[in-house]
Amino acid sequence: MPKDKMNLLVSFDKNYIRPFQTVITSLVINNPKEEIHIWLLHSDIPNDDLLKLENYCSSLQAELTAINFDRKLFSSAPISKRYPQEMYYRLLAANILPETIEKILYLDPDILVINPLRPLWEIPLGKYAFAAASHTGVTNIMSGVNRVRLGIKQDYFNSGIMLINLVKARELVKPDEIFRCVRESKSKLLLPDQDIFNFLYGSLTKQVDDAVWNYDARHYTDYLVRSGGEADIDWIMKNTAILHFCGKNKPWLSSSSHLFGVLYKHYMQLAARQR
Amino acid sequence: MPKDKMNLLVSFDKNYIRPFQTVITSLVINNPKEEIHIWLLHSDIPNDDLLKLENYCSSLQAELTAINFDRKLFSSAPISKRYPQEMYYRLLAANILPETIEKILYLDPDILVINPLRPLWEIPLGKYAFAAASHTGVTNIMSGVNRVRLGIKQDYFNSGIMLINLVKARELVKPDEIFRCVRESKSKLLLPDQDIFNFLYGSLTKQVDDAVWNYDARHYTDYLVRSGGEADIDWIMKNTAILHFCGKNKPWLSSSSHLFGVLYKHYMQLAARQR
Repeated sequence: MPKDKMNLLVSFDKNYIRPFQTVITSLVINNPKEEIHIWLLHSDIPNDDLLKLENYCSSLQAELTAINFDRKLFSSAPISKRYPQEMYYRLLAANILPETIEKILYLDPDILVINPLRPLWEIPLGKYAFAAASHTGVTNIMSGVNRVRLGIKQDYFNSGIMLINLVKARELVKPDEIFRCVRESKSKLLLPDQDIFNFLYGSLTKQVDDAVWNYDARHYTDYLVRSGGEADIDWIMKNTAILHFCGKNKPWLSSSSHLFGVLYKHYMQLAARQR
Repeated sequence: MPKDKMNLLVSFDKNYIRPFQTVITSLVINNPKEEIHIWLLHSDIPNDDLLKLENYCSSLQAELTAINFDRKLFSSAPISKRYPQEMYYRLLAANILPETIEKILYLDPDILVINPLRPLWEIPLGKYAFAAASHTGVTNIMSGVNRVRLGIKQDYFNSGIMLINLVKARELVKPDEIFRCVRESKSKLLLPDQDIFNFLYGSLTKQVDDAVWNYDARHYTDYLVRSGGEADIDWIMKNTAILHFCGKNKPWLSSSSHLFGVLYKHYMQLAARQR
């Protein structure tokens, strides 16, 4: 049976075009037999840049569809350079994307894909609308703080990698609820979209293994200790599919010194060669 | 004008099949538009393994031709596990390969190709029969010792990466001379084939930049210092085409902790996925 097409959702402003190119390059090299369709939700990326990005993806045999989203809809949301407005768009994917799409995998642009994504794509969602990983095991304290802060019972999920059952999400996600939540809780949001996601939809989310699907690249030692020494570099290179460069120390910054910096910079170069 | 096919020469025993698969995987990913023909000189690789290796290369769109070489011809050469007999075969490439091949690039199996090889392939050889790099700048003392030991005037070349002008080499390389040299100097050879190469053909060799074409991966700090701080990780990832894992600390050994270990192990995984 032929594999179904993988639909990917991304959302960023023009500052993230290059990191995104690194993501898609790493994704294609590590998933060479997949048919990829990328949906980009954005507000301000100029047409010229979009055209170039379409050609770029096309040179990697991936299709790109850009959807312009009216910035005004989140005009009351707390934003900053590190947390631009585009981060909210993923929450509305179910309402924005064509009804014909039943499932989509959201990916942050500060990641590197180093193994096949198909096992994540095919995780049975059952009653859940989402699947995501929690960084609880490597950032224990914050997860507890976040739970108390938001008054939620389940683990605090990282919203950087999310498999979305769009059929379920179309039933359950109410844009009004999201907008109201943004307006009302402006002052206590630390990681705005992620807090909203956890507060509103955490209980609808199936947990997946962060060491495989959303490895927080800042916390090598914590993963190693947590796994009793198993999750060393060999293990990560064999098993981890997505390295997530959370936090401020982004590996594409020249000032960055990072355990996975050599690998990331090699993919930057592979990505640059396609331009 | 279409590019000419790249002929590559390799020579190893069956212990090096997996490292070679990592080499060819990295080479193809970083040279996606090249037509590659690999010539393997060997003695003892079983037919089953050769067939698998042919299929492996074919799945990467590379052609492999294996040439069986009579082990007896080098029966008097000093060999060991680390320096198997196959290391001598490259010296006879001009005499073994079909006359129709005019140029070939020899590659050791303990390397990683991380950028395009075409600029090396197209280096004008002029009067020279070979092009190779010297690790003089990063292993100064050894180069001096080697020069004195072998009584040569030019820099001591590393024979792990060699571009060979086969037309010139067919004129200049005399198998008898190589065999006599092996017999006579058995006791003073430290790196057997490399010493012979330098002693007999060093003066016929054009020097190329080792930081680009034969980066000794043990010596990051030396390259950095030698370049006045320029050759940092960003520079290497952009400019270095071949990382050479010289010495005993091979990055595929699980005991290895290596600056480029994450990158190497990622390519091991990419290579394993093709099997």
